[in-house]
Amino acid sequence: MTVFSRIITLLTDFGYDDPFVGVMKGVVSRINPAARFVDLSHNVPPQDVFRGALMLRSAAPYFPTGTIHVAVVDPGVGSNRRPLLIEANGESYVGPDNGVLSLALSDKKITRITELRNHAYFLTPTSATFHGRDVFAPVAAHLSLGIPAEELGPALADYTKLTWPRSVQGNGLVQGEIIYIDRFGNLVTSIDESDLRTIEDKPLTISLRSYTVQGLHENYSSGAGQELIALINSWKLLEIARFCGSAQLHTGAQVGDKVRIGYRA
Amino acid sequence: MTVFSRIITLLTDFGYDDPFVGVMKGVVSRINPAARFVDLSHNVPPQDVFRGALMLRSAAPYFPTGTIHVAVVDPGVGSNRRPLLIEANGESYVGPDNGVLSLALSDKKITRITELRNHAYFLTPTSATFHGRDVFAPVAAHLSLGIPAEELGPALADYTKLTWPRSVQGNGLVQGEIIYIDRFGNLVTSIDESDLRTIEDKPLTISLRSYTVQGLHENYSSGAGQELIALINSWKLLEIARFCGSAQLHTGAQVGDKVRIGYRA
Amino acid sequence: MTVFSRIITLLTDFGYDDPFVGVMKGVVSRINPAARFVDLSHNVPPQDVFRGALMLRSAAPYFPTGTIHVAVVDPGVGSNRRPLLIEANGESYVGPDNGVLSLALSDKKITRITELRNHAYFLTPTSATFHGRDVFAPVAAHLSLGIPAEELGPALADYTKLTWPRSVQGNGLVQGEIIYIDRFGNLVTSIDESDLRTIEDKPLTISLRSYTVQGLHENYSSGAGQELIALINSWKLLEIARFCGSAQLHTGAQVGDKVRIGYRA
Repeated sequence: MTVFSRIITLLTDFGYDDPFVGVMKGVVSRINPAARFVDLSHNVPPQDVFRGALMLRSAAPYFPTGTIHVAVVDPGVGSNRRPLLIEANGESYVGPDNGVLSLALSDKKITRITELRNHAYFLTPTSATFHGRDVFAPVAAHLSLGIPAEELGPALADYTKLTWPRSVQGNGLVQGEIIYIDRFGNLVTSIDESDLRTIEDKPLTISLRSYTVQGLHENYSSGAGQELIALINSWKLLEIARFCGSAQLHTGAQVGDKVRIGYRA
Repeated sequence: MTVFSRIITLLTDFGYDDPFVGVMKGVVSRINPAARFVDLSHNVPPQDVFRGALMLRSAAPYFPTGTIHVAVVDPGVGSNRRPLLIEANGESYVGPDNGVLSLALSDKKITRITELRNHAYFLTPTSATFHGRDVFAPVAAHLSLGIPAEELGPALADYTKLTWPRSVQGNGLVQGEIIYIDRFGNLVTSIDESDLRTIEDKPLTISLRSYTVQGLHENYSSGAGQELIALINSWKLLEIARFCGSAQLHTGAQVGDKVRIGYRA
Repeated sequence: MTVFSRIITLLTDFGYDDPFVGVMKGVVSRINPAARFVDLSHNVPPQDVFRGALMLRSAAPYFPTGTIHVAVVDPGVGSNRRPLLIEANGESYVGPDNGVLSLALSDKKITRITELRNHAYFLTPTSATFHGRDVFAPVAAHLSLGIPAEELGPALADYTKLTWPRSVQGNGLVQGEIIYIDRFGNLVTSIDESDLRTIEDKPLTISLRSYTVQGLHENYSSGAGQELIALINSWKLLEIARFCGSAQLHTGAQVGDKVRIGYRA
């Protein structure tokens, strides 16, 4: 039986104009010629750690056991922010200690947090501006060859975690925010499917800016002809959308806008 | 001899900002760790089924026998539009029944049309908003492992076909449209090389908006210094172009603009 | 021991909207089913040969011995510009003879320059507008199977080289240009780390338009709070940057702007 190399996913804010991601794959391939890559996205807006963290959270559960996730959204590159490897559920997460790994790990049992300190597994000389190439790529490559975390550096007790923007309102209902807008202009909120279950069985209303959306739809096309609809999206989060159109363009909403849940009196 | 897994091509309107395509590859890799992917493009404009269909048509002939083409431009996701597998020439085409598969298949002998109905080959629970992840990716993965179409659902007699916008004018000559504009601003028409062969041996004139282009060039650089040129492009379609420039920016042309063929009196 | 197929890197100005790059991979895969691809970037601005050459130069050193680099920025496609294979250091460079390969090769010992003339290794019929698909992809595929250069065409004595824009000023110091602006808005100059070593040990000043930057920083974050900083970047070139911001937006600088080096009196 052929044993396949562990998949290495790549998530960065490097974009598609520059050769930076290709270079990371070159570095990995020199260390492990059998390496296999899946790009999650390289269009995280520059330095947008939260968005990167959210994308990793939404994608990681769909990969095979053993996958190595490399996330490089790293404004502090070359400073004293720590480079990390975090292991959980047989998966490995590699990236800077600025929270970009944290949302994917929030529900998981972490087995080891390692500070990447062993320069023997880095590219040398190690630049101060491109740790994707010089630190994270070679470490991921060595991991894919079976190097244990203990070799890569000392264990840490904790790591930087981002906060999920969600709060309970005075009336006991949930308030959240727009946390992500996808390329279709769908407005993804921080309100989880399970937040809504706690609401008694009355027609739901969702408020955003001056807009109010009534009820939940099953899919986009069932909302044909309506100005805006709400539904539970594929990330199991409440989403405000517009069939064959952009809810973002229609409402002018931005990431960070408050979203309030209520129910019709 | 090593047997390689069938290539899975991916064509979507998911863009490069979101992690949706990476997630599809994760889903496939969990089912078939040997899967190999080629991205055709993920920048089909949202819900532009015709453009997606045209891109698949232009790309599919260049892939090995056995390739599995997955095309997800799917505004009707979660509605009663049918998810399909169409087999022809030893190739497999997977996507929604909205025409996105049809232009690639128009000249081919179809051996089976299957409605994807066997949920055992879907991800469960199956969302109503992301069949790329929950239906089409896992089905493609199972196909790549050798699961026969009969397992995936019942045979259908027909499927949705798009119309190729081309007509014969009163004078017996062909009229077409701009059907595709590429990143260089080249204006691709629906007029096929073989349409032009039927015109008698007189100098050709191509009319678009207020512009008239005379004759056919062999390549772009032979048109250096000219305002606009016409040529038969790599898809064997008539194209209007501008050397080291953009015919789109120069003419303001849009997809859907009529293109008329004539010959100089 | 498994022998892996040589990696084929792809660098083009084809963008991500059209299926052109996917088609090249299809063509390669039909010839060598074991082929492995790494995309360097496909967003070279249309016909920008210099930028493509610079990207290849920055990426190639990080790939394994034996890698086949295919660079297609090719405004002269179909004209009499020559299609080339250049071999150096056990690596193969494939592309048009317009300089796009040259910056990557400037420090290397070239073993053979081959004009690709043997049509038996092309796709037939060979279009006059898409040599990426019809010439360069199939040649790369055959190379990856071990076909020797001698089979592909005759040896040439020379090839087109681009000039590196760098000059010595009257005072013996170096003057360069902005040669590349990355997605973060970092301004990469043509001034090499080694150019700076020749300056005596006085505080360095870098002038660009009406801006003057003092000294070199180690990394981006150490420049927090400063308007602009200079540093040696991961390509070992002098770069002008702005921490968590865009030096391009801040200065309005463009590729081609002069950059002068001096030192404080």
